[in-house]
Amino acid sequence: METKKDFHMSPEDFRRYGHELVDWIADYQGRVENLPVLSQAQPGQILSALPKQAPEQGEDFSAMLKDVEQIILPGITHWQSPNFFAFFPANVSGPGILGELLSAGLGVQGMLWVTSPACTELETRVLDWVVDLLDLPARFASTAAGGGVIQDSASSASLCALLAARERASAYRCKDQGCDGKQTIYVSTQTHSSLDKAAMIAGMGKDQVRKIAVDKNHAMQARELARQIEADRAAGFTPCFVCATVGTTSSNAMDPLCAIGEICRQQNLWLHVDAAMSGSAAVCPEFRHIHDGLELADSYCFNPHKWLFVNFDCDCFFVADRAALTRALSIMPEYLKNQPSESGQIFDYRDWQIPLGRRFRALKLWFVLRHYGKRGLRFHVRRHVDLAQQFKSWVEAHDQFELAAPAPLNLVCFRHLDSDARNQYIMDRLNQSGQLYLSHTRLDDKLTLRMSIGQTHTEQRHVERAWQLIQAAAQGYLEKKA
Amino acid sequence: METKKDFHMSPEDFRRYGHELVDWIADYQGRVENLPVLSQAQPGQILSALPKQAPEQGEDFSAMLKDVEQIILPGITHWQSPNFFAFFPANVSGPGILGELLSAGLGVQGMLWVTSPACTELETRVLDWVVDLLDLPARFASTAAGGGVIQDSASSASLCALLAARERASAYRCKDQGCDGKQTIYVSTQTHSSLDKAAMIAGMGKDQVRKIAVDKNHAMQARELARQIEADRAAGFTPCFVCATVGTTSSNAMDPLCAIGEICRQQNLWLHVDAAMSGSAAVCPEFRHIHDGLELADSYCFNPHKWLFVNFDCDCFFVADRAALTRALSIMPEYLKNQPSESGQIFDYRDWQIPLGRRFRALKLWFVLRHYGKRGLRFHVRRHVDLAQQFKSWVEAHDQFELAAPAPLNLVCFRHLDSDARNQYIMDRLNQSGQLYLSHTRLDDKLTLRMSIGQTHTEQRHVERAWQLIQAAAQGYLEKKA
Repeated sequence: METKKDFHMSPEDFRRYGHELVDWIADYQGRVENLPVLSQAQPGQILSALPKQAPEQGEDFSAMLKDVEQIILPGITHWQSPNFFAFFPANVSGPGILGELLSAGLGVQGMLWVTSPACTELETRVLDWVVDLLDLPARFASTAAGGGVIQDSASSASLCALLAARERASAYRCKDQGCDGKQTIYVSTQTHSSLDKAAMIAGMGKDQVRKIAVDKNHAMQARELARQIEADRAAGFTPCFVCATVGTTSSNAMDPLCAIGEICRQQNLWLHVDAAMSGSAAVCPEFRHIHDGLELADSYCFNPHKWLFVNFDCDCFFVADRAALTRALSIMPEYLKNQPSESGQIFDYRDWQIPLGRRFRALKLWFVLRHYGKRGLRFHVRRHVDLAQQFKSWVEAHDQFELAAPAPLNLVCFRHLDSDARNQYIMDRLNQSGQLYLSHTRLDDKLTLRMSIGQTHTEQRHVERAWQLIQAAAQGYLEKKA
Repeated sequence: METKKDFHMSPEDFRRYGHELVDWIADYQGRVENLPVLSQAQPGQILSALPKQAPEQGEDFSAMLKDVEQIILPGITHWQSPNFFAFFPANVSGPGILGELLSAGLGVQGMLWVTSPACTELETRVLDWVVDLLDLPARFASTAAGGGVIQDSASSASLCALLAARERASAYRCKDQGCDGKQTIYVSTQTHSSLDKAAMIAGMGKDQVRKIAVDKNHAMQARELARQIEADRAAGFTPCFVCATVGTTSSNAMDPLCAIGEICRQQNLWLHVDAAMSGSAAVCPEFRHIHDGLELADSYCFNPHKWLFVNFDCDCFFVADRAALTRALSIMPEYLKNQPSESGQIFDYRDWQIPLGRRFRALKLWFVLRHYGKRGLRFHVRRHVDLAQQFKSWVEAHDQFELAAPAPLNLVCFRHLDSDARNQYIMDRLNQSGQLYLSHTRLDDKLTLRMSIGQTHTEQRHVERAWQLIQAAAQGYLEKKA
């Protein structure tokens, strides 16, 4: 048989197993609600269930689907469960999943414009759609001097922004001569850890990351920022980069962009705005105030792979001056030279990112934006915020729980008034039960529970049940002690 | 209707369109052979065919499929055409595509072990399978002090290796204090440009990248490497990192790992081996000599997303001392702390890479290895090498063409004896015809054509036809001049 002789999956088998897998995923979405959210697997459990070597002879795909069910599924922490309230959402949707499938099927490399013009141009256009969708400053559009690009994550976007800032501040000398440990970076004590990591990677040094104090709402104090910049200049450092956050991971705090932006403009510092978790809120006009002052930023990112129904990876990263970015990241060896690149008429997105290769990620974002339309996206973002605001009101009304932070959008930070031990107990008990998954942070040096609401299929009943379970677990702590 | 009211794609529509898209991909694989390989699109063509804004109202998925066909497809350069001979292969397969689909459908975040134990443990196990599959040194297995991880690309793998080397050589001070521009890096004049880019990103500086001269086969001269290291030490630099290549992008040159490895050991330098394009050859015992000396390396990478039927992104990156890597890249904020991580019993792969987030990429590699089995993979790698060796023999036998480099595996570098202009004409004419796609390099300061053979469905007839078209184009040059 021809199809066996060459070992490839035959077109017939691809259709058959493809349909089967599509159906498996549709079924999974239906049953995930009833699976334990946090995997109950013990360290080594999955590893020991897998053979020690690849098979000598190929296997039928049905064997793999069986192992997915029996070995893999018990090791999954279900980010797509409507009872997933940990960390941040990573919500997916039908059109997003199909976009990823098409990208895999086309199998194109989008490193250069010429290696698939549609891969580059669809991305450029869809990122311009996002400028309109979130009502971002026009300078971030490709039709101005800026433009957007899809990164794998906000960590990588922040690193790219930092590199562009490092180069601009050093008159493009660091990339050739190396860093000198004198450039300083400004974040708040609440900024995402990826900025520390970016400073490490970029050879600027974590010691040069200044952690500006926050106010009672966990937002950066602009006055402290200005003071630290002055102090660093006086001490012989070169301040070059500020990262302000729209919705911190820990507590959804909103740094004051206008005040920070004015300081950056006066001091000629690169302002990057990290809205990874919360930027999606700006699809709704009533939440667009979170971006007030963004016109002062040099770069901006948010993650449709968190809260806009596009499966990971899809971070949208925008710069106001694309030349500053590509000048920091471009390299052109002979074997990649080509006429369109040399014409300057097109974008080569490899110069906008860390890796060379890139897949056709714009498809999934395009499919999601078209499937839902602006109206559908607004509907769901509003719905998630409404659910979180209801949860917040229940916490506020309860005499044994308190809010730990303002909760402007879809993350509610709260805690039992009793003790860290009791909050830890609540979290551990619920997570181990598999009924829901919550994560924590520390605010004001107290253990704080985080209720993050944004999974595609989370409805009011899931949030109501979570609140009942949380109260019951808080009660259970007393019984355990007794 | 409930399903319209909430704007989500209904399970019924997901099944229906999912099946339709699977069928579209199966059909695409059948017809891609007859599509122009290099997209004939002009700059701006795709962009101008797309609306300027996302729609207000959601659209039916059938509208997107129609646009894929009418707008996107003409802008695709078909990496999956059996007539694609440019750059390097990026071959895909049915089981790989289905693995990507399942990863998107599960939608898990694998940043920490706890956020999906199976995502981490399957990756660990499958990367151990690869150690066995390629007969790599046992020190790269997770059962020793090393281990493997999937990166998006060899660029990112090389950057991670460089960061680990930078930290080890600076007693883990660079990441905190910043670089000093004194650490030196060794590559050959033929090493991939991503190493220059890594040095720029890492703040070590491109000026500190020493490009060691190559021999007549374009392989690094170990004696020159030793000489340069000594000279740098004498000049007050700190040599820290060597990248040796198994199969350079330009001409498939093989750096002498044994000699380079001995120097690195004597001088205490980190040796990274980049086998991105050619490592897959080691599935066949008869080609494993390309890795002779690899036991002296600190890290190694190759790309199943090039020549092992796994769709991009899937670079396998191995280190001999995983602690050296994670010590260079780890950061642990409160909101990510969890008991399994603190136990030290498990891997958190976020500490093995640049970004924080990661998707479940091990699934596609697992599916491919199981579907083909070792036997199927050997069959195809051998077949590609055979086809290239036949092409090589045709070039050698022709009185107007010459080989430009040894061509040990599946890449043949060759040129018409006449002139750069004639070779340029051959390439441009063929690429513009859409009949096949070739790319170029410069070797010995002459324009050189590259015939890279490795697409999943490339057969003898495609290679024979390519050779006929090349000869005809060479003839056409005279007619054009006449």
